[in-house]
Amino acid sequence: MADKKMVEEITSMDVDFAQWYTDVVKKAELIDYTSVKGCMVIKPAGYAIWELIQRQLDDRFKAIGVENVYLPMFIPESLLQKEKDHVEGFAPEVAWVTQGGLQPLQERLCVRPTSETLFCDFYKNDIHSYRDLPRVYNQWCSVVRWEKETRPFLRSREFLWQEGHTAHATAEEAQEQTIKMLNVYADFCEDVLAIPVIKGQKTEKEKFAGAVATYAIEALMHDGKALQAGTSHNFGDGFAKAFEVQFTDKDNKLKYVNQTSWGVTTRLIGAIIMVHGDNEGLVLPPRVAPIQIGIIPIQQKKEGVLDKAYELKELLGKSFRVKVDDSEKTPGWKFAEAEMRGYPIRVEIGPKDMEAGKCVICRRDTREKLEVALSELEEKAGELLDTIQKEMLERARNRRDENTYSAVNMEEFEEIFREKSGFVKAMWCGNEECEISIKERLSVTSRCIPFVQEHIGDTCVCCGKPAGKMVYWGRAY
Amino acid sequence: MADKKMVEEITSMDVDFAQWYTDVVKKAELIDYTSVKGCMVIKPAGYAIWELIQRQLDDRFKAIGVENVYLPMFIPESLLQKEKDHVEGFAPEVAWVTQGGLQPLQERLCVRPTSETLFCDFYKNDIHSYRDLPRVYNQWCSVVRWEKETRPFLRSREFLWQEGHTAHATAEEAQEQTIKMLNVYADFCEDVLAIPVIKGQKTEKEKFAGAVATYAIEALMHDGKALQAGTSHNFGDGFAKAFEVQFTDKDNKLKYVNQTSWGVTTRLIGAIIMVHGDNEGLVLPPRVAPIQIGIIPIQQKKEGVLDKAYELKELLGKSFRVKVDDSEKTPGWKFAEAEMRGYPIRVEIGPKDMEAGKCVICRRDTREKLEVALSELEEKAGELLDTIQKEMLERARNRRDENTYSAVNMEEFEEIFREKSGFVKAMWCGNEECEISIKERLSVTSRCIPFVQEHIGDTCVCCGKPAGKMVYWGRAY
Repeated sequence: MADKKMVEEITSMDVDFAQWYTDVVKKAELIDYTSVKGCMVIKPAGYAIWELIQRQLDDRFKAIGVENVYLPMFIPESLLQKEKDHVEGFAPEVAWVTQGGLQPLQERLCVRPTSETLFCDFYKNDIHSYRDLPRVYNQWCSVVRWEKETRPFLRSREFLWQEGHTAHATAEEAQEQTIKMLNVYADFCEDVLAIPVIKGQKTEKEKFAGAVATYAIEALMHDGKALQAGTSHNFGDGFAKAFEVQFTDKDNKLKYVNQTSWGVTTRLIGAIIMVHGDNEGLVLPPRVAPIQIGIIPIQQKKEGVLDKAYELKELLGKSFRVKVDDSEKTPGWKFAEAEMRGYPIRVEIGPKDMEAGKCVICRRDTREKLEVALSELEEKAGELLDTIQKEMLERARNRRDENTYSAVNMEEFEEIFREKSGFVKAMWCGNEECEISIKERLSVTSRCIPFVQEHIGDTCVCCGKPAGKMVYWGRAY
Repeated sequence: MADKKMVEEITSMDVDFAQWYTDVVKKAELIDYTSVKGCMVIKPAGYAIWELIQRQLDDRFKAIGVENVYLPMFIPESLLQKEKDHVEGFAPEVAWVTQGGLQPLQERLCVRPTSETLFCDFYKNDIHSYRDLPRVYNQWCSVVRWEKETRPFLRSREFLWQEGHTAHATAEEAQEQTIKMLNVYADFCEDVLAIPVIKGQKTEKEKFAGAVATYAIEALMHDGKALQAGTSHNFGDGFAKAFEVQFTDKDNKLKYVNQTSWGVTTRLIGAIIMVHGDNEGLVLPPRVAPIQIGIIPIQQKKEGVLDKAYELKELLGKSFRVKVDDSEKTPGWKFAEAEMRGYPIRVEIGPKDMEAGKCVICRRDTREKLEVALSELEEKAGELLDTIQKEMLERARNRRDENTYSAVNMEEFEEIFREKSGFVKAMWCGNEECEISIKERLSVTSRCIPFVQEHIGDTCVCCGKPAGKMVYWGRAY
């Protein structure tokens, strides 16, 4: 009974998905709440996932010439106000610093909600000639948005992210960069996080404040809700004109730069939880699992068992991230804990196994058990981690596809969202009124106009007028 | 003439060291100023140094069991006020957030100047039993202190750092951790940054607000001024009592934890500049040089030259961080630029070299040139980088030692600080009045009571009373 306690304390995801999520982030020790509403402590098990995301994404950035920088966390109010749409979008949700030391400030500073305005201010010193272009910068930092409703990883007042900011000589180059970065995100989500995503463009209504066009990757969670997992914006020369960021081109003429920005956040950790998790807790894809193999000694007080466990750690530790649970808990408790924390593989080793020169491996994703000869353990573990990584993506893709529907009229559309949840593909006339109407009636939003278009019909699912665009719709986090 | 321009724009360090420093940080493109006073942009060349510091220091942390976390950037005013000495030390220099979104906040939040109070608040949830101890946490983040006088890297209103925070069952363990981390910093500075440091304890007057004891590593800059390069604090159970952080010990009794904290900042980049730099600009130790080898093609328009340069980059790039300067600048300009940016090695390759199957290598630190057969280049470059790393530390240590003096009375002490600059070793009675008197008369502060004590005399350099402690004194950044 006691062995099962940890697990039993989690709400089943079918009973209450939101509570299941909250239970997992707490029980898997990813976060803790703090005395500042909407701000959280990211605990070692959570932060280690973020470090693995950072490292692997940063490597992909560097491979295509992105340079990391660090800009201030404060934006003077006058700077934030230079681009009209941008300030309208962000001013209502920023935190304001009004006092520095013992003195009131002459001008309020907001804590950056995003750094377009600071980068523009910087570009004015940094960019003079076409020789200075392109600039392809990125920074890893925290940002603040004073959200009313907050949830760990998904929506918090302070969160960690990377924000890329680029400047280009031409509109074409900026557009190319915008799409290139969206592809980096999509590949990263699929290859590393095992999360399949839909790539597409946001509608005018859903685009970023100040952008000409916003592109996003959209993922489907276990409960059928959509999660925007990353965005990439093309600003054209709008910011450049507002901030007067100009360069002398090859033809000796003064021109405005074209800009982009793109970002992903700690929200990706929320996506990992909600795409892969189950009623036993977290299930981590091997490539972002801080512990890939948990070794659990059975009857560890028997002579040689712990030594063997450490020996296996030594062996496996050369290629993988490994932990031995040598605590005084019962093996059953340790199994439950390893499952809660989502270790992709659990290795059980006891006196009988040792005698037989084997051990038991248990996959976290399928909970399948197999016996492996100790002499083959290193090789098998590597193969199994690769298999798990691959199959987790396949399963997530199948589930996403099974929960993706099509609707040709409002009756079908409403019925799906009443009875099921998931993505619905439907045609849209391009009119914002239809988006608003759908949102008001069903709390459903346009997720994106996917790059891969299908022919679902010829008329708008909402108003019935001619429609040329297929849109993914869903209820979103 | 044009080739020399970049260099000529730098003030000589003998003429005006402060201006030389400012020139180097700008010309080597490490930073840019922003419209927020005291906040800077860390540009790619500067941030890449910080990334190398982070990566290598973090590896050392992880090797001794440090776990990374992330805590909020905001501290409620009531939380900051819980530890009396701490709030007195920091409240006068924090930035206050008073408005979130469109609403005034019910309680002011300060932007963290350091996170002891937040960690204590977190520990209350995180620590219950002796089994939960020790906790050895660290975070990489930015902090804010509303300084009046600011200088790039050395003192800015926002700066990047790591702050370690630990909790232990006993006072002995906390003291052990404090010293262990000081040693990690000292070894890191010597091995990686090639900066020799003095390890010691701060006096009561100079210790951290809220600490029982503060330890520091102190380095000597090229101008003879001291720089505190890292600190490690033992808090005893003072914070634990103020925040009621208790645990149930093995004897079933409720006890207060003992805590430590320790940090280094982007200030280390300032130290690298001021310890190793010269009148040609930055000189980077190979282990923190974002570019270790700069390849400069000579007569690059001649057939095969650029190809050869890229081929060498390919070859050297397997083991080192390498860049080819294939821009249209003249070789002389490129040499000056490579020197300004502090690349440890410059490789020159032109048509004549190619014919002879060799190239020219130039060391940044000694500016020594040597010819190397292309077939031996990879091996020689590796050896040379090791040599440079080693000799940079030796030279810095020799210079530090040459600029370290002893004084047995105030006459000698004053004479040294009037005519020279550097560290002065002198005896101190332990009385704060003598420290204050010396500071007022000479702007000289006690840097630390070094672990390695020498017998300079038996009486206090200031008051002449019996003195048992030797102190390093200096003018400090």
